[in-house]
Amino acid sequence: MPKLSLPAKAQFELPEDVIYLDGNSLGALPKGSVEKATRTIQSEWGQQLIRAWNTAGWMDLPRQIGNKIAPLIGAAEGTVATGDTLSIKVFQALDAAIKMRPGRTKILSDTGNFPTDLYMAQGLLRSLDRGLELITVAPEAVEEAIDDDTAAVFLTEVDYRSGRRHDMMQITKTAHTHGAVMIWDLAHSAGAIPVHMTASNAEFAVGCTYKYLNGGPGAPAFIYARPDIAGQIDPMMSGWLGHDAPFEFEPDYRPALSTERLRIGTPAILQFAVLDHALEVWTQTSIDEVWENAIELSNLFIERVEDSCPDLTLATPRDPELRGSHVSFHFEQGYAAMQALIARGVIGDFRAPDIMRFGITPLYLGPEDIEAAADHIATVINDRLWDDPTFKTKNRVT
Amino acid sequence: MPKLSLPAKAQFELPEDVIYLDGNSLGALPKGSVEKATRTIQSEWGQQLIRAWNTAGWMDLPRQIGNKIAPLIGAAEGTVATGDTLSIKVFQALDAAIKMRPGRTKILSDTGNFPTDLYMAQGLLRSLDRGLELITVAPEAVEEAIDDDTAAVFLTEVDYRSGRRHDMMQITKTAHTHGAVMIWDLAHSAGAIPVHMTASNAEFAVGCTYKYLNGGPGAPAFIYARPDIAGQIDPMMSGWLGHDAPFEFEPDYRPALSTERLRIGTPAILQFAVLDHALEVWTQTSIDEVWENAIELSNLFIERVEDSCPDLTLATPRDPELRGSHVSFHFEQGYAAMQALIARGVIGDFRAPDIMRFGITPLYLGPEDIEAAADHIATVINDRLWDDPTFKTKNRVT
Repeated sequence: MPKLSLPAKAQFELPEDVIYLDGNSLGALPKGSVEKATRTIQSEWGQQLIRAWNTAGWMDLPRQIGNKIAPLIGAAEGTVATGDTLSIKVFQALDAAIKMRPGRTKILSDTGNFPTDLYMAQGLLRSLDRGLELITVAPEAVEEAIDDDTAAVFLTEVDYRSGRRHDMMQITKTAHTHGAVMIWDLAHSAGAIPVHMTASNAEFAVGCTYKYLNGGPGAPAFIYARPDIAGQIDPMMSGWLGHDAPFEFEPDYRPALSTERLRIGTPAILQFAVLDHALEVWTQTSIDEVWENAIELSNLFIERVEDSCPDLTLATPRDPELRGSHVSFHFEQGYAAMQALIARGVIGDFRAPDIMRFGITPLYLGPEDIEAAADHIATVINDRLWDDPTFKTKNRVT
Repeated sequence: MPKLSLPAKAQFELPEDVIYLDGNSLGALPKGSVEKATRTIQSEWGQQLIRAWNTAGWMDLPRQIGNKIAPLIGAAEGTVATGDTLSIKVFQALDAAIKMRPGRTKILSDTGNFPTDLYMAQGLLRSLDRGLELITVAPEAVEEAIDDDTAAVFLTEVDYRSGRRHDMMQITKTAHTHGAVMIWDLAHSAGAIPVHMTASNAEFAVGCTYKYLNGGPGAPAFIYARPDIAGQIDPMMSGWLGHDAPFEFEPDYRPALSTERLRIGTPAILQFAVLDHALEVWTQTSIDEVWENAIELSNLFIERVEDSCPDLTLATPRDPELRGSHVSFHFEQGYAAMQALIARGVIGDFRAPDIMRFGITPLYLGPEDIEAAADHIATVINDRLWDDPTFKTKNRVT
């Protein structure tokens, strides 16, 4: 495959008159996705019908896609299982971690973790009812809070609001020093920044594919398990596709030998097909190249916005090594300002209480987009355009 | 909408030279699915991007689809939550049932239940480690085995091999007499036979949509909770979309007031869109009409096959009230015979040890298909065509 030069806008369908700075929430549409979905629906489902599970390779697709995600997170072949949603994969990692450390009493997370991660932990711990507690501390206090009662440290690497990035190597090391299992949520990392799962030595990672991996709305999630422990996991959700021989229809669960035991039910084939297509772009570029571009674009964005909008306060670390691939600003009237921006076609998003969040996705954004976006932001903020009650209809971009 | 006359083959894309008797495993492709997927991918994802969660109604789609499934299973509006896979929904129902009956020691199922249902129960019970046991008895011994230690009775209404149907009303009543919670798996019922969830008074039902509801490979699953208990469920898998206010990003889980608390993570929108389209056929026909046709077609099929193939033994009850919508025969060389049939374009499937299984789907099968299929079966069985080692290439239908 020839190497792409970035941005590779020609590979994506982007609406005219939109600068899309929300690829950290839902990635843009890769060209060819409709054709891929059409083939899957018409030729495979329609013509091959039930046989397509074998003839079109549906049954093996989740494993293959796991192997396409693995190199993007620095993991080896056969270590990534795919399917379900990120919430479910979080649950699986927590379940496995708790079983690996019987007798320990704490799951440690931070207050910047994404709510559903904390909710899933709460539901699991409440249901197990064994005195295990979920402790959340400020992100900067995590390392210090790890102790010998900690069963698992469970963190999202990149904060969904501020973009602040944890030091994966360092925290994993500290967790292991205390005998705790380490779980990383890579929701805002996979496809955005280089991740080194093998090198980190962390036991588990989970992530989604609809953000920087452009898999589409509701695309399947993934879970990484360190190969030396994968074969020892006793999954609470022991579904038939995690069985060593699903089609033997044995009366008792017998887990697959590898990470594949973390598959559960019948895979969402249409989503997998479209995701498979979206992952093709990674044969022509690398996560290192994308990240280098993200640093340049993010620096440019920060510089332009800070220069022209003194009312905005940077919420994201200035050091690229301490952040992910989105840039956030505090602004008291951030919600209204973001609505005004979206109405002008500059799509970012807002996170309470006051965060204006902008995703920097070098696959389909170049310096000219960043500069134009910064100009729009300056106009909206400095002219206080959200004070204009008619902005919604005047400048709406559909 | 004008009423359809059945079969409504014009509504489905079916390959030429195929008689499809496996709609009980993967339903056929409804016409217009490609167009629906294209619109969702191109106009919604591609053009509306992140905004589509609101502007294209993605966020509300699972609830709407729950309300389209509800009448098909005799349930009221707002009682069916959709998403994930059937295995996950089984897990949720078992989790809720166990919590409703603390102190009880048994989950009762039968040996005819689908393996993943039993596997999910095994994983949950093993992980809870509270002395709760999964007891499986022969299907005909279930009622007698229910006692006051039974926390939940958990059955698949229609046996995936034999097609034998449990008496939902009677067993639910017996379960309740002993204070047990009743869970029905409707995998082979929804869209096939009339189901009366409200009337049954059962607490839970789960099901999939890729069989008789034609939602496509990996289509979302559903779970019904009786409305008087839905608001008391404390879900172990407490994901953000089951939260009362997912976008408030509160630190603590606070369940939605209704069955919606059984939603978990981000919904698989492409699958939901295609499923939504597939459910449109039910505005033009009814489950009663489909079932009446299924009885006629099944009776015809049984009569023809029995007349011409004395070597096959009916595995399915003769009384339509005691069966679902597939017909199975025991035949020692069933596996090879089914391969030979498939090679001739008559697609059924095989289930160990000796079951040849044929799905009867009146939406796209008429008497002429049933008669032609029976003729092919007679030829294959009586001429022992699987003894011909070249049949695979000679008669392959792609």
